[in-house]
Amino acid sequence: MPATPYYLIDKSKLKSNMEKIAYVREHSGAKALLALKCFATWSVFDFMSEYMDGTTSSSLYEVKLGRQKFGKETHAYSVAYSDDEIGEVIENADKIIFNSISQLTRFADQASGIVRGLRLNPQVSTSSFDLADPARPFSRLGEWDVAKVEAVMDRISGFMIHNNCENADFDLFDQMLGNIEEKFGSLLARVEWVSLGGGIHFTGEDYPLDKFCARLKAFSEKFGVQVYLEPGEASITKSTTLEVTVLDTLFNGKNLAIVDSSIEAHMLDLLIYRENAKVLPNTGDHPYMICGKSCLAGDVFGEFDFENEIKVGDRISIQDAAGYTMVKKNWFNGVGMPSIVIRELDGTERVVREFSFDDYVSSLS
Amino acid sequence: MPATPYYLIDKSKLKSNMEKIAYVREHSGAKALLALKCFATWSVFDFMSEYMDGTTSSSLYEVKLGRQKFGKETHAYSVAYSDDEIGEVIENADKIIFNSISQLTRFADQASGIVRGLRLNPQVSTSSFDLADPARPFSRLGEWDVAKVEAVMDRISGFMIHNNCENADFDLFDQMLGNIEEKFGSLLARVEWVSLGGGIHFTGEDYPLDKFCARLKAFSEKFGVQVYLEPGEASITKSTTLEVTVLDTLFNGKNLAIVDSSIEAHMLDLLIYRENAKVLPNTGDHPYMICGKSCLAGDVFGEFDFENEIKVGDRISIQDAAGYTMVKKNWFNGVGMPSIVIRELDGTERVVREFSFDDYVSSLS
Repeated sequence: MPATPYYLIDKSKLKSNMEKIAYVREHSGAKALLALKCFATWSVFDFMSEYMDGTTSSSLYEVKLGRQKFGKETHAYSVAYSDDEIGEVIENADKIIFNSISQLTRFADQASGIVRGLRLNPQVSTSSFDLADPARPFSRLGEWDVAKVEAVMDRISGFMIHNNCENADFDLFDQMLGNIEEKFGSLLARVEWVSLGGGIHFTGEDYPLDKFCARLKAFSEKFGVQVYLEPGEASITKSTTLEVTVLDTLFNGKNLAIVDSSIEAHMLDLLIYRENAKVLPNTGDHPYMICGKSCLAGDVFGEFDFENEIKVGDRISIQDAAGYTMVKKNWFNGVGMPSIVIRELDGTERVVREFSFDDYVSSLS
Repeated sequence: MPATPYYLIDKSKLKSNMEKIAYVREHSGAKALLALKCFATWSVFDFMSEYMDGTTSSSLYEVKLGRQKFGKETHAYSVAYSDDEIGEVIENADKIIFNSISQLTRFADQASGIVRGLRLNPQVSTSSFDLADPARPFSRLGEWDVAKVEAVMDRISGFMIHNNCENADFDLFDQMLGNIEEKFGSLLARVEWVSLGGGIHFTGEDYPLDKFCARLKAFSEKFGVQVYLEPGEASITKSTTLEVTVLDTLFNGKNLAIVDSSIEAHMLDLLIYRENAKVLPNTGDHPYMICGKSCLAGDVFGEFDFENEIKVGDRISIQDAAGYTMVKKNWFNGVGMPSIVIRELDGTERVVREFSFDDYVSSLS
């Protein structure tokens, strides 16, 4: 067994998401691209690429990673490209989606050899987090003025619209899509493809997949467009755990257990969004606050109920640790960085990456 | 000139902090250790080590870095050590400070060859951020029960107490130290050294250095202890900028400029603590919201006033970008990671680290 901490990606759990994605592709006609910003652990890309159409990206490095490691269809998007990188982006992409008319105008000619699109912002979103809400006031994410967009229609053949965020509610998705149809219908009818972005939790339990497929198909047929989905979290949800070991236990008014990891270094979104981790089954008579080992006072995974008293050396599996974790891990406090381990379909586990003191040293200079 | 983005560490600015630290050492008798958790860019350690006594750490990797790259006195502290790493920690440290009595008890014998200490928590702090407040309810950071600590006094010769946080107010520091004297006086009188931790902004403008030195000296004499300070931010404040380039400008009700960096990837604390960056001189008739290029809706450095209209290609210097930035940088969105550049005392600049696509790829697997 590898030394903790490590991210454990379980292919059999990944497979159940992949099968739902394949089902949606088949029954809706939509194509599905992995959003690398959420998950970019390329050792499982050969497996995922059997079920998905390609990748979408948010930078030069992501588009290159998608092209080199995932293959198939490669979409390029970024909030802004630089003059220095645009050539390499275009070389590595099948489609490039610009965030603004000014970026489109700047690079349209250079990108004329590949498919070009523009991001639209419908100015409504499902996000309850201002930080993650692309429709927040003064958002820089996409164009919303139909008249301005009409003036550049000769340079694009499609749109990307991303305004769902951790949306597990089909009716809300349906309503969001209705807004888009109403607001941008005249534009949608003139293009060949529309990406609806990510943030739709259609691989979650009890999501009405057939209604979702029918809705996507109706949208596709209404405007005569190829629909794309860009699942990030939906692709890898519940596939991965962060495996940690208890290093110390304390009683400070509550029972605390300190583990060999840190939310800031290894599961950063828990800190940014002030959320709790998940531990299963979370039932029992022994409540503990599970804390990280960084110096941060608020380095707390959450409070959970355990079956037994926790002792130094015990192992804990932090659930649902694939999305936005490995892509954001960092060397805060020099805390040992989790290895990456893959559990194959036959149950064997293989370590695909370990990080050493030398990696820490060379992260700086 | 190097390509942006890059962190620019200006040794002449660093020097003015160093000289204040040297002044405090000379006039108070306190020793000063760089807190690596805040700043670990080791290419300037040879320079800093002329003015400071050594380093303090929060993990195995930091203690090794301090020993190998900074030298002099090397303190080891961590919220929790594992059985696997404790041997290597002890090999690389002059002093080891345990966070809890249980960790002390577990490792006291193994560490008997070096100086041993314990962290105390006075249960009051200067922090207005719950996240960063070591005295928060149910804090795991240090022991507070005098009777329990008395039982292990035979195994330690000193204490670490860290309850200041971005404290620029001498009177507040004085009051905090008074609390410590009152609460822990009986223990302090029995040890040889006391570290007062970091978070004291004594290198800031107009800080009353002589009063500070006198207070430290009085504390030292009262209990007969060698005082240690662990300046992190105070060591490197205002020494460094993050140099960025404008990639796009937009008007979305406000004027926005998008730059080739990201707060989440390169200045993470702005996001975690919901703070604004600093841009100077921040005067003029042209207000802009400066935004990062990641997909995060809230990737905003802040709103600043500029002398002139901002155009694509303009350079902006984000001020005060040394503390907790390089040690927390990460590959979110695959945004190009800033190089690290040092401006020498004679004004020449040298690039000490550049990060490539290969670094991005090997950050995952």
